[in-house]
Amino acid sequence: MEKLEMMYEGKAKKVFKTDDESKVIVYYKDDATAFNGEKKGQIEEKGVFNNTITSALFKLLESKGVKTHFIGKLNDREQLCSKVQIVPLEVIVRNVAAGSMAKRLGLNEGMELKTTVFELSYKNDELGDPLINDHHAVAIGLTTFEELKTIYGMADEINEILKEFFLKQNIKLIDFKLEFGKNSDGEIILADEISPDTCRFWDATTNEKLDKDRFRRDLGNVKEAYVEILNRITGEIK
Amino acid sequence: MEKLEMMYEGKAKKVFKTDDESKVIVYYKDDATAFNGEKKGQIEEKGVFNNTITSALFKLLESKGVKTHFIGKLNDREQLCSKVQIVPLEVIVRNVAAGSMAKRLGLNEGMELKTTVFELSYKNDELGDPLINDHHAVAIGLTTFEELKTIYGMADEINEILKEFFLKQNIKLIDFKLEFGKNSDGEIILADEISPDTCRFWDATTNEKLDKDRFRRDLGNVKEAYVEILNRITGEIK
Repeated sequence: MEKLEMMYEGKAKKVFKTDDESKVIVYYKDDATAFNGEKKGQIEEKGVFNNTITSALFKLLESKGVKTHFIGKLNDREQLCSKVQIVPLEVIVRNVAAGSMAKRLGLNEGMELKTTVFELSYKNDELGDPLINDHHAVAIGLTTFEELKTIYGMADEINEILKEFFLKQNIKLIDFKLEFGKNSDGEIILADEISPDTCRFWDATTNEKLDKDRFRRDLGNVKEAYVEILNRITGEIK
Repeated sequence: MEKLEMMYEGKAKKVFKTDDESKVIVYYKDDATAFNGEKKGQIEEKGVFNNTITSALFKLLESKGVKTHFIGKLNDREQLCSKVQIVPLEVIVRNVAAGSMAKRLGLNEGMELKTTVFELSYKNDELGDPLINDHHAVAIGLTTFEELKTIYGMADEINEILKEFFLKQNIKLIDFKLEFGKNSDGEIILADEISPDTCRFWDATTNEKLDKDRFRRDLGNVKEAYVEILNRITGEIK
């Protein structure tokens, strides 16, 4: 597998072509951003941690029958993935009120919800990734109601798998963001990453935050939180 | 029917108890507000126009089998209505991109949509009536998925009836806001009003705005727009 030119650079990752048209190499950076790019920084070795964490979680999901873009981890910062056309939606799954939802709805962080909340954001930096609903997404041609049904079904299944997995590591999965893509067969599969950048993880005993909120809110011990998640997931000591 | 003390005063209406516990009198004011109350004013005789327009439209909807709180028009500014417990949601139906949706999603006003858009706002002045989705509404206890199914079914039916009706008056129904309530039997029925305060009406030939956007955007001829809608709906000349 030969790594060719960069196709795309995002906030936290770069994507490179390979000599196989159906596969890409994803490179994890240390760059950290928050509040739609208003806050910028670096978290030392984050790319290494998030590549390892995402690889472990996508492998877990694949083992449970969830179709993903993940093929394999190549090295510290790189994964080989199936090339997909990203559906321009962020799919947010919330088990507990926190972050933007708590703020919008005037809820205390940590409030239990009467039902799992699924949210869509329109991936559009210029508009600030606005919250939308299913009708908006279909009305402006981002997806179809049929695709959304598949996406919600997968998001629900992923949530059940991850909640159970994390609870065994004494971590509460508060909420997380997923992205989906279409592979060359037009099939919807899970793409992007699952890491402390894209999830809220709270220690189940102390409620200590072990995720990017430590960076967003200047809580200190940012790198340590990523390392803690890595250790609990993989057993690796850093 | 005796009018008793005021139960509630909203931005555009007052609601009074009557000597029948199951009925209320709704009084239409001339007060106009926009942008969650940031802009305030009065539109001369608006209360009279909106009472007449709403009465005519609720009568039309009742004749087509839609259950509403409307019992009858009492006088220029007052209606007799069934008492309901309002579901704390604004249900917005959009046939064409305009207003807040156009702004949020970076669309041109007037853009045709691939599907009718239904939106929910959480009726909460302090939070600025935020846009929410079905999951939010259920998760924080505002309603149930079952009630939402009823509400969307009714909103869709109302949209079809009104679109057809207005087109006959050479008016395009761009979007509108509905509120629903539960009557003493726990049944979901249409409440609130349908008027140039709560709808966007564009002349089907010229696209001239004939609704509260003339007030919101300082376009002039505000009263004239309400009178025009009144005339086209009722044939009454003011």
